[in-house]
Amino acid sequence: MPDLDPQPPAVILNEPQLAENIGAVARAMANFGLSDLRLVRPRDGWPQERAWASASGANWPLDGARVFERLEDAIADRQYVLATTARPRELRLPILTPREAAGELHAMTRAGQAVALLYGGERAGLETRDIALCQGVITIPIDPRFHSLNLAQAVVVTAYEWRMTVLDRPAVSFGKNQVPPAEQAVLEGFYGQLEGELHAAGFFHPPEKTPSMINNLRAIFTRSSLSEQEVRTLRGVVTALSKGRGKVLEKLAAKRRARESHD
Amino acid sequence: MPDLDPQPPAVILNEPQLAENIGAVARAMANFGLSDLRLVRPRDGWPQERAWASASGANWPLDGARVFERLEDAIADRQYVLATTARPRELRLPILTPREAAGELHAMTRAGQAVALLYGGERAGLETRDIALCQGVITIPIDPRFHSLNLAQAVVVTAYEWRMTVLDRPAVSFGKNQVPPAEQAVLEGFYGQLEGELHAAGFFHPPEKTPSMINNLRAIFTRSSLSEQEVRTLRGVVTALSKGRGKVLEKLAAKRRARESHD
Repeated sequence: MPDLDPQPPAVILNEPQLAENIGAVARAMANFGLSDLRLVRPRDGWPQERAWASASGANWPLDGARVFERLEDAIADRQYVLATTARPRELRLPILTPREAAGELHAMTRAGQAVALLYGGERAGLETRDIALCQGVITIPIDPRFHSLNLAQAVVVTAYEWRMTVLDRPAVSFGKNQVPPAEQAVLEGFYGQLEGELHAAGFFHPPEKTPSMINNLRAIFTRSSLSEQEVRTLRGVVTALSKGRGKVLEKLAAKRRARESHD
Repeated sequence: MPDLDPQPPAVILNEPQLAENIGAVARAMANFGLSDLRLVRPRDGWPQERAWASASGANWPLDGARVFERLEDAIADRQYVLATTARPRELRLPILTPREAAGELHAMTRAGQAVALLYGGERAGLETRDIALCQGVITIPIDPRFHSLNLAQAVVVTAYEWRMTVLDRPAVSFGKNQVPPAEQAVLEGFYGQLEGELHAAGFFHPPEKTPSMINNLRAIFTRSSLSEQEVRTLRGVVTALSKGRGKVLEKLAAKRRARESHD
């Protein structure tokens, strides 16, 4: 049987702790037709025999799992990433139900884009800086009286909704002439440039607020699904502004020198 | 926070094997606002400490769990029971997706009826005779290439859909003047009478087909959501027919006697 979707979502586990849970995630992925598993800094290293033991035969997501040191690298080839998290965040990102998320993911893959689902570790969940790399947040509508959702269960719900959506809608491709969003690696390069220049300009003040300022900035651009061309444009903007600032500084310095020589 | 629904579905596990899975089911129930857990012949007895250990604090469904020897007793106070099973069955019962099932369950509870979700054990699943006691079948659309779905995962998907439906629709009560279906215990009494009379009449032939004939018969009546009045009517029908048969037999015997005395 062929895959339902040309490129189903990758499943990314950020700092997963228990190998048993990674195995249970693989099983849930197999149940709903997903196979691309990526692990960012698994606590106990990789591979872990106990993952296979708890996958009940769903070995292929584990056999093919890739390990990354940085979340940025795990999502580098993706254009649309949704973070599953229960906690409301200060970031201005769209918050989707699993069903809405499945609809978005499917629409993206139909347009030829590479997508992913991101899950945090068992204890800590996802940090704001992880979520700021994503285009949106999935919140599973669990009972507020008991909101400790098992990692594999979160994968079950989101993968189930993805499969329901795909089964529901023909997997035809459309919007070929629409410009796809840039891959995350391209965005990442832009963030590096932007934040470097802002640092140089003394923008991040006070220093303890730097991380949240960066997260909020990233969320603004991540949210808008920039195309490669748009990223190039923005890089040009940053270059122009920072060079411009250089010129302004030169002029100020020249003025000061002139004033000093006057005195 | 009050319950979303006046009477959320009971979760019935038929012959569950592993206490860890019962605990994981309790956790999933708590996640989605369910609490009425019923166990039919748990393999290792009850209570089992390991269930609490794997429930991650979702103790109340376990603390309140009731154990039954027979599935019939576990569903006796329910009016609408759906069986979750992956395998297609020969029974003529409606087959629902988890989403459709959630809609039906919610409509039933809004009309004041008691409902339940039934799940089979880890290895064997549900037998046809178990399913024949239900008003419909839920089939989770898992990938046919890997259809080994963990028990707790099946509960996650169905409970999640129930919660999504309930959150979506106001929990107002309607159809108060509609006649509700009879409780399963009332149906069970009728089945006992019907099958007793059919046995006496030599209906079940050949004997090895008796179980499947009984299942098919039960499914016919179960499916039609009989009211108590309708069950009373049917019992009258069976009584009339079987008494009538008695009269026919008496007449035949009289005829034979007459013939014999002639010879």
